Amino acid sequence: MRTYEAIVDAVLATEQTKSFVTSRRAELEVDLGGIPGDRHYGLLRPADVRQRFYARGTMIANRRQLSLLAAEECEIVASALGVPVLRPEWLGANVLLRGYPSLTQLPLGARLLFASGAGIIGEGENEPCIGPGRVIAEACGRPELAQRFVKAAKHKRGIVASIELPGVIREGDRVAIMIP
Amino acid sequence: MRTYEAIVDAVLATEQTKSFVTSRRAELEVDLGGIPGDRHYGLLRPADVRQRFYARGTMIANRRQLSLLAAEECEIVASALGVPVLRPEWLGANVLLRGYPSLTQLPLGARLLFASGAGIIGEGENEPCIGPGRVIAEACGRPELAQRFVKAAKHKRGIVASIELPGVIREGDRVAIMIP
Repeated sequence: MRTYEAIVDAVLATEQTKSFVTSRRAELEVDLGGIPGDRHYGLLRPADVRQRFYARGTMIANRRQLSLLAAEECEIVASALGVPVLRPEWLGANVLLRGYPSLTQLPLGARLLFASGAGIIGEGENEPCIGPGRVIAEACGRPELAQRFVKAAKHKRGIVASIELPGVIREGDRVAIMIP
Repeated sequence: MRTYEAIVDAVLATEQTKSFVTSRRAELEVDLGGIPGDRHYGLLRPADVRQRFYARGTMIANRRQLSLLAAEECEIVASALGVPVLRPEWLGANVLLRGYPSLTQLPLGARLLFASGAGIIGEGENEPCIGPGRVIAEACGRPELAQRFVKAAKHKRGIVASIELPGVIREGDRVAIMIP
């Protein structure tokens, strides 16, 4: 078991369930389904194009409860797109980390333990799609960024995660990252 | 995504929650917590020595709902121990597969889709401990087998798994094994 450390730069959740865009919070209280009230909350979720082996819409266990980004990876993508900053809100992130720059490569099953009490399990790379690209394009007034985001963010768009130990994740938290 | 196929040789569950020893069933109906009534059933389980990064007994998400064995691996372990057969009951198995001999090496996050409807997620290797060793020693009248089992079964004791799609697992089912 290798252990690393990072810091929680920001925590965010959706305002409602209609849009994936998130906004900042002081802390997140998570339970076994994720962040209550957030768009991705639930013990179950409908299977989508990522689980082609199930009929679309079949309710399956929700392993995509949280979206995590590394600030360092966001900076690389911002630079590739020629924008001054890539806001985690635009990507629908719930947790922005700093200090672990290769977050997207974190192997499935790694644990992230937050000083405020919550523990989560890394569920693997989040593959970029055009939704956040459109938000970025709109925010920056540059329509060509929608498609360019998908390519630029490949292997740099962070991970999804599910809750192992219900509790709190707070801005400024230290995070122990444990790789089996 | 690579796909393999196997057959369900037997399905089993515990009679009650006091002992991990299982007995045969015609089918298992699984929900999001595993096999209702089985010793390892639940959305939550207490953290143990396998999750040293949590205080022992802390209730965490249960990713060890089912135990799966490969018949071929059991035969290798039986041969190493000099016993004619290693019964899945003794190891507390819930599903005995045949046709995928390297089950214990199945990577975390692989899917097993059963023809009767259920879908499960492989949660990695099940490390042998002395409990089943004692059951084998008792059943075979050879006390030395308790310790020998732990060594002989290393990397051959199958995997644990959690439910992704609630449904049925039936003896004789075909299983599609999908490795990401």
